[in-house]
Amino acid sequence: MLTFYYSPGSCALASHIALEEAGAPFTLRRIDFSRAEQKSPAYLAINPKARVPAIVTPRGVLTETPAMLAFIAQSFPDARLAPLDDPFAFAQLQAFNVYLCSTVHVAHAHRMRGYRWADDPAAHLAMQKKVPQSVGQCYALIEQKMLKGPWVMGEQYTIADPYLYTLAQWLEADGVDAATIPRVADHRARMKERPAVKKAIAEELAG
Amino acid sequence: MLTFYYSPGSCALASHIALEEAGAPFTLRRIDFSRAEQKSPAYLAINPKARVPAIVTPRGVLTETPAMLAFIAQSFPDARLAPLDDPFAFAQLQAFNVYLCSTVHVAHAHRMRGYRWADDPAAHLAMQKKVPQSVGQCYALIEQKMLKGPWVMGEQYTIADPYLYTLAQWLEADGVDAATIPRVADHRARMKERPAVKKAIAEELAG
Repeated sequence: MLTFYYSPGSCALASHIALEEAGAPFTLRRIDFSRAEQKSPAYLAINPKARVPAIVTPRGVLTETPAMLAFIAQSFPDARLAPLDDPFAFAQLQAFNVYLCSTVHVAHAHRMRGYRWADDPAAHLAMQKKVPQSVGQCYALIEQKMLKGPWVMGEQYTIADPYLYTLAQWLEADGVDAATIPRVADHRARMKERPAVKKAIAEELAG
Repeated sequence: MLTFYYSPGSCALASHIALEEAGAPFTLRRIDFSRAEQKSPAYLAINPKARVPAIVTPRGVLTETPAMLAFIAQSFPDARLAPLDDPFAFAQLQAFNVYLCSTVHVAHAHRMRGYRWADDPAAHLAMQKKVPQSVGQCYALIEQKMLKGPWVMGEQYTIADPYLYTLAQWLEADGVDAATIPRVADHRARMKERPAVKKAIAEELAG
């Protein structure tokens, strides 16, 4: 049995959806950011980075969304969530997920988490001001060069799809006009109809 | 045959070392940042992100260091650069590499690449000022909680080792005192003695 630690509205939704798609047995455990529970001694013992998501497995803890998504795909191969027998195709998939993690999510984080990279409140404002442009450039590249369609990697639905969907929740708040990236917007709309997505979102709101 | 695109002093060194450790056949191709070659139409056709590293394979292009490192390990399994038959151990390894990519490298990038996240020169200065602290916190966590020793994942040398070594080249320039993280410093010193590391660095300097 796995225990999945999340916070609603966070990037944890990607792994949560993947667990649902895989039919994985897991227990949900909400970390309450409004009470700074991610910095509590109990949670720091699980994830010293003080972030979500984290999965506690019988063998230990896993963190970092791209690593967790690959773990879910490899642990539940019948769900066919990644091209596990093709190192090149698997690397293309992982490159997409790592781009989301290290570039798209990072650009987004400069809107609300500027304190990670500067102490000056004026610098935080300067960062917020650039988010529509920096996040917008990421999505323009995804729209034009990366999203194969209908799913991220083409005909096969993979672990890249819930991750793109999760980050694309934040487009409007980041000041990006979804009408300028119609293929990403269409992907988001189709993802919303999947039973695993509906179930994961309902569970997070109820949790 | 693979073609490996790099720039000296960049994070490309990690994949370059891994290619050497794997005994992979590849051709080196230097991208000259002083002439902005990464933004040339020829290179943008290879990597529209205008970054290094990139590997051109007979099936297409791969980018993003954690994805490339996993690809090298999976493509050359005899080199035993990752626990390929153990999804949990593989995920732990990938979580380490993704942390380097999305948190450590990103913290470092705020010293010289602040223009990615703000337009105001004063904000760039504020970002530079925080780098010793933000990068230092990352390495404190690696020192205390993540680096198992003697190699990153324990007894077995893996693709995490050249990646940690590569980013740890920048410690002093980022204002982090290596004496405060003796296990990371020791890892860096031992890595420097490996033939694959010596060869990769000599090739990049000569290239």
